[in-house]
Amino acid sequence: MPVMMKAAVFVEPGRIDIVDKPIPDVGPNDALIRITTTTICGTDIHILKGEYPVAPGLTIGHEPVGIIEKLGSAVTGYQEGQRVIAGAICPNFNSYAAQDGVPSQDGSYLAAMGLCGCHGYQATAGWRFGNKIDGTQAEYVLVPDAQANLAPVPDGLTDEQVLMCPDIMSTGFKGAENANIRIGDVVAVFAQGPIGLCATAGARLLGASTIIAVDGNSHRLDVARALGADVTLNFRDCDVVDEILRLTGGRGVDSAIEALGLQSTFLSALRVLKPGGTLSSLGVYSEDLKIPVSAFAAGLGDHKINTALCPGGKERMRRLMNVIQSGRVDLGVMVTHQYKLENIVEAYDLFAHQRDNVLKVAVKPA
Amino acid sequence: MPVMMKAAVFVEPGRIDIVDKPIPDVGPNDALIRITTTTICGTDIHILKGEYPVAPGLTIGHEPVGIIEKLGSAVTGYQEGQRVIAGAICPNFNSYAAQDGVPSQDGSYLAAMGLCGCHGYQATAGWRFGNKIDGTQAEYVLVPDAQANLAPVPDGLTDEQVLMCPDIMSTGFKGAENANIRIGDVVAVFAQGPIGLCATAGARLLGASTIIAVDGNSHRLDVARALGADVTLNFRDCDVVDEILRLTGGRGVDSAIEALGLQSTFLSALRVLKPGGTLSSLGVYSEDLKIPVSAFAAGLGDHKINTALCPGGKERMRRLMNVIQSGRVDLGVMVTHQYKLENIVEAYDLFAHQRDNVLKVAVKPA
Amino acid sequence: MPVMMKAAVFVEPGRIDIVDKPIPDVGPNDALIRITTTTICGTDIHILKGEYPVAPGLTIGHEPVGIIEKLGSAVTGYQEGQRVIAGAICPNFNSYAAQDGVPSQDGSYLAAMGLCGCHGYQATAGWRFGNKIDGTQAEYVLVPDAQANLAPVPDGLTDEQVLMCPDIMSTGFKGAENANIRIGDVVAVFAQGPIGLCATAGARLLGASTIIAVDGNSHRLDVARALGADVTLNFRDCDVVDEILRLTGGRGVDSAIEALGLQSTFLSALRVLKPGGTLSSLGVYSEDLKIPVSAFAAGLGDHKINTALCPGGKERMRRLMNVIQSGRVDLGVMVTHQYKLENIVEAYDLFAHQRDNVLKVAVKPA
Amino acid sequence: MPVMMKAAVFVEPGRIDIVDKPIPDVGPNDALIRITTTTICGTDIHILKGEYPVAPGLTIGHEPVGIIEKLGSAVTGYQEGQRVIAGAICPNFNSYAAQDGVPSQDGSYLAAMGLCGCHGYQATAGWRFGNKIDGTQAEYVLVPDAQANLAPVPDGLTDEQVLMCPDIMSTGFKGAENANIRIGDVVAVFAQGPIGLCATAGARLLGASTIIAVDGNSHRLDVARALGADVTLNFRDCDVVDEILRLTGGRGVDSAIEALGLQSTFLSALRVLKPGGTLSSLGVYSEDLKIPVSAFAAGLGDHKINTALCPGGKERMRRLMNVIQSGRVDLGVMVTHQYKLENIVEAYDLFAHQRDNVLKVAVKPA
Repeated sequence: MPVMMKAAVFVEPGRIDIVDKPIPDVGPNDALIRITTTTICGTDIHILKGEYPVAPGLTIGHEPVGIIEKLGSAVTGYQEGQRVIAGAICPNFNSYAAQDGVPSQDGSYLAAMGLCGCHGYQATAGWRFGNKIDGTQAEYVLVPDAQANLAPVPDGLTDEQVLMCPDIMSTGFKGAENANIRIGDVVAVFAQGPIGLCATAGARLLGASTIIAVDGNSHRLDVARALGADVTLNFRDCDVVDEILRLTGGRGVDSAIEALGLQSTFLSALRVLKPGGTLSSLGVYSEDLKIPVSAFAAGLGDHKINTALCPGGKERMRRLMNVIQSGRVDLGVMVTHQYKLENIVEAYDLFAHQRDNVLKVAVKPA
Repeated sequence: MPVMMKAAVFVEPGRIDIVDKPIPDVGPNDALIRITTTTICGTDIHILKGEYPVAPGLTIGHEPVGIIEKLGSAVTGYQEGQRVIAGAICPNFNSYAAQDGVPSQDGSYLAAMGLCGCHGYQATAGWRFGNKIDGTQAEYVLVPDAQANLAPVPDGLTDEQVLMCPDIMSTGFKGAENANIRIGDVVAVFAQGPIGLCATAGARLLGASTIIAVDGNSHRLDVARALGADVTLNFRDCDVVDEILRLTGGRGVDSAIEALGLQSTFLSALRVLKPGGTLSSLGVYSEDLKIPVSAFAAGLGDHKINTALCPGGKERMRRLMNVIQSGRVDLGVMVTHQYKLENIVEAYDLFAHQRDNVLKVAVKPA
Repeated sequence: MPVMMKAAVFVEPGRIDIVDKPIPDVGPNDALIRITTTTICGTDIHILKGEYPVAPGLTIGHEPVGIIEKLGSAVTGYQEGQRVIAGAICPNFNSYAAQDGVPSQDGSYLAAMGLCGCHGYQATAGWRFGNKIDGTQAEYVLVPDAQANLAPVPDGLTDEQVLMCPDIMSTGFKGAENANIRIGDVVAVFAQGPIGLCATAGARLLGASTIIAVDGNSHRLDVARALGADVTLNFRDCDVVDEILRLTGGRGVDSAIEALGLQSTFLSALRVLKPGGTLSSLGVYSEDLKIPVSAFAAGLGDHKINTALCPGGKERMRRLMNVIQSGRVDLGVMVTHQYKLENIVEAYDLFAHQRDNVLKVAVKPA
Repeated sequence: MPVMMKAAVFVEPGRIDIVDKPIPDVGPNDALIRITTTTICGTDIHILKGEYPVAPGLTIGHEPVGIIEKLGSAVTGYQEGQRVIAGAICPNFNSYAAQDGVPSQDGSYLAAMGLCGCHGYQATAGWRFGNKIDGTQAEYVLVPDAQANLAPVPDGLTDEQVLMCPDIMSTGFKGAENANIRIGDVVAVFAQGPIGLCATAGARLLGASTIIAVDGNSHRLDVARALGADVTLNFRDCDVVDEILRLTGGRGVDSAIEALGLQSTFLSALRVLKPGGTLSSLGVYSEDLKIPVSAFAAGLGDHKINTALCPGGKERMRRLMNVIQSGRVDLGVMVTHQYKLENIVEAYDLFAHQRDNVLKVAVKPA
């Protein structure tokens, strides 16, 4: 086995480079994965632009599909050579936060470094790959807490078919799960980027009767329809709030899913929500949110607002791959482009500028 | 039986008067209640000040304790002369909204007047007494949908003991119910006015292990302690957010209940909330809310925000009176003053200015 | 308008006759519906055989599709001439039981007659049509608590398309709702009669990844596959428990739905259930159930067993019709035969003996 | 440090002996605890009698309070010398079952030995101490998956105060949690042994308004009253079912908790349950259960039956100790007797025969 590998690292705002790095050592609870396919996420673009700070030299990327190269001595039930994925969020399931129901919010490894409170809760700290530890845009990645996080890929599924599981599908589906969808519901999904598209597919899967997908990009609205939207609204062509209220006879939607992270989409989601409805928020907000009293019924509307970070863990990955394997949804259609790892800078450029109707890019080290 | 009655009506901003009004006719699904005790709510102060608009001439007040004077022809299972209460919110339980789980948000009677959408959802429209129809600060009140809303008072409970059930207790307890409290939780309750005090009592009743009550009034903090708070914090004496984070070892609280309706209390509630925690909001906000990205983990903190309007209905009232009857909590201590209906203007003055450690005022027509 | 109507009444065990009856008077909260289509339920067969006792002379049937002929004086928001359905279970939503979350278990009208406890809970007492009051196998039916129970049929839906909503679809879907289905689940549905088929369709709608349908009738298994089953098992061809454990790699299913009411199906459902799984029971049991300790993990398996009676009410009906209208499922395929009301005895005979691959029979008075 | 220790081992049915055993080696994810206090559980009596089979030579007992003697190399955040407890059930939180929400049902370590299905679900297999691995009635115990299971004891709490946390309190409180208790509920708890007493205390803590405790031992009923029961019924003095129906005006209880494991208690629990209510079962059943159709409303009563195995894990233990520390309940009163480990055979005899009003026995190695 080689000792060095290629990895895409953050150098400085605006610059990601392919560099040589040592292949990491494997501790008793780790696993080393040889990446066969990974991808680029919107978050990576924020990192590239310097909007989300990571340590210079860190390997970025958090969506691994690959082969187990080496298992830690305490990891059982897997074999080297096995095809696996791991979640973008690799929680420590032994932590207080995980046992408390929020594994993605566990910061126990930060706590071990004295960086957060004694019980180890730290918002978003369950996200480690390409954030706090080296990520997946490399030839190899070290998976911590491997016993909890390695999920074998069922035979017959391609890398592309499961490439959305670690992040986009897990996040988008969580958005649908958080929306409290019941049979017969009307659900509106604001923004149809990769996560919004998965939220649309998830809302369909969970039994919504009418799904209204909103975006300003007609190609994405077409994909939304293919993934389960009943109605698509282009905000360039209509007043979305008015139109949704009209479509629902003034009642509003039972659930609204926000999948972008802007004041405008959040506010539209709230404005179309019936009293008693649920706003499921997935977006990463970069500015303070304002909630007008009128949209919020002065706090008396029995509204629910739920936010989420992508769920991880091998059981979550297993379930998402079940969905793929059963043919319920085909998210392979979202992988529109393919690049070699050595050309990842080019892939970043395409993805960041949303050229050529790109949705997601498969990146392959070999 | 007389044909006229005394009633406290809204005349114009700043002015409530006692006037003579006809005792209303009783339709098939109504009941006429002779009020024995009612009270004044913070909302009534907003009405008095003109901050919340109601029609001039409307009888205000929404918390009835009294005797059934006359039953509608289609109302069964009650007797004239029976002691009853009814919720501040008197929903139409035949409505779509009620069957959908949010009776307080039903506007079907507004819909019947063409004032809201076809399915009759209308935020807060379940609130009728002293808002859309004549209220309880009068000798008699007409209860609509009486079959759903009249709740017999168990023998042995005084008017004062059940006077909080229609609104304050139902609302405050809902705040605790909406907080997703589990055994061993730490819960912070921001503001200890009547509703906050009931939220504190409710959090105690639902199993919170540590309850932190916050206010700027030391008398109210003493009452909070008597009703179940383990720790009281006066925001005049400390930085509440810092102190709560210190008390929880940096972890934050599992649930935060906001019981005032200000930007500052909402924000403090969010700032002390652990990732994955629930913010239960009870306040009536009169200004737009701002949610700083930092307090909200950029939308990635698995936070839940739940708002509520006071639940009504006879089953709710029955359950709350069970709590009183079992001796679990004694909210009679919150009734600090008593006035005759004819002196209600004086009572408003005391209550609006929070003089003399007033918490709630019993108002008696006779 | 005529004063007499045709109705199918229970005469004695083994005998149902078409007789002439007066068209009932309409009280303030009632509505008179002119039936355009109704159907026969398995429960009606039990009544016919004398296994479930009803009063001789009672009109049977509980699944109405029709036209509002006359509205009670206190019923608002509907028009005479409007096409409606009502649930098989017509609860009184003003009752304690309904406000407590179990409208189907309300016996308040029995309580009014002194036949059950003061709060009016009475198991299954929400079922009135063809049980306690005259039913739907007639030219007209009187709907009690009409404000809560009349659900307008959307334009464009045929009688046959909505004929399953009042009972079979509401019950079968409740079986799926009670099964706590999550994304990626494996669900087994035992028995594929009309209710089991709807449970299968419901499990598909709610996001199960693998649905295993079990029956002994290969035609019904074919329909199950058309409605969403991934795997069908004929218990005449295999040991169902062994086969399901094999299919799930020894893990068992996440949820099992029992849709027949026999010891054998209940037991199989329990035997294939993973520890921590949910058994959703829909069957009407006519004999005592035995639960072997071994299948029950001696009570230590974190199992959940949920039973249900068909949910009713206009909001439930509205939601189910939304599902139909959105094209999510087509239950019209289950209406395999059509009879005139005057020939209903013949229809009973066909349905009772499951001849000619019958699933459900449309019965039309005119 | 010594190399040998004293341990109480199962020899053959009817015989437990104190023997010398090697102190176990500590693997990377283990911790060795020096026991300061442990206790005897009803399950241990079943083991002693040979009714529940364990391997001869196994150290029994599953309720540890002690001091960390040695930590595995991969366990972080603890110090040797720290006082800790661990749950009776020590789950592997990295397992599929744990991530799926049922850690107590994980059999992944059995799966590793080829003893259960590939995903490692195995009913009750999360119970390891004194069942599959050496237990706590010894001078030392090896805690597996220590990172997930060691819970530091807050300063100021005695061994006796936290001795119920690992099993009795966690189980009894789970019975209350599984009962879906809401404000204003009436809850009946059948059997007031140690677990039933904790269920009574838990029901009180979770907000039940009326708690009816049932047993045949008047001393235990007195303790039940001290722990929160409002009404106590001795089944030797009355027909419990009749009496509970009378007390609830014919309505029945909202929730019934079974805490013994007999046909008779299960059936009484079902007979007093309102339609729509929840039966929370904690008992370990040694005979097949029979459910009469009449008590079960033929399967149509919207009943819920939930079973449970004691929850474990450090977060659970932390929460239970919070409850103790806050003074909400004092379970120290349940520790009625104390024995040295060397005299444990005598303690078994006392406990098995329920002599001298014994509830729980503290057993101390030193």
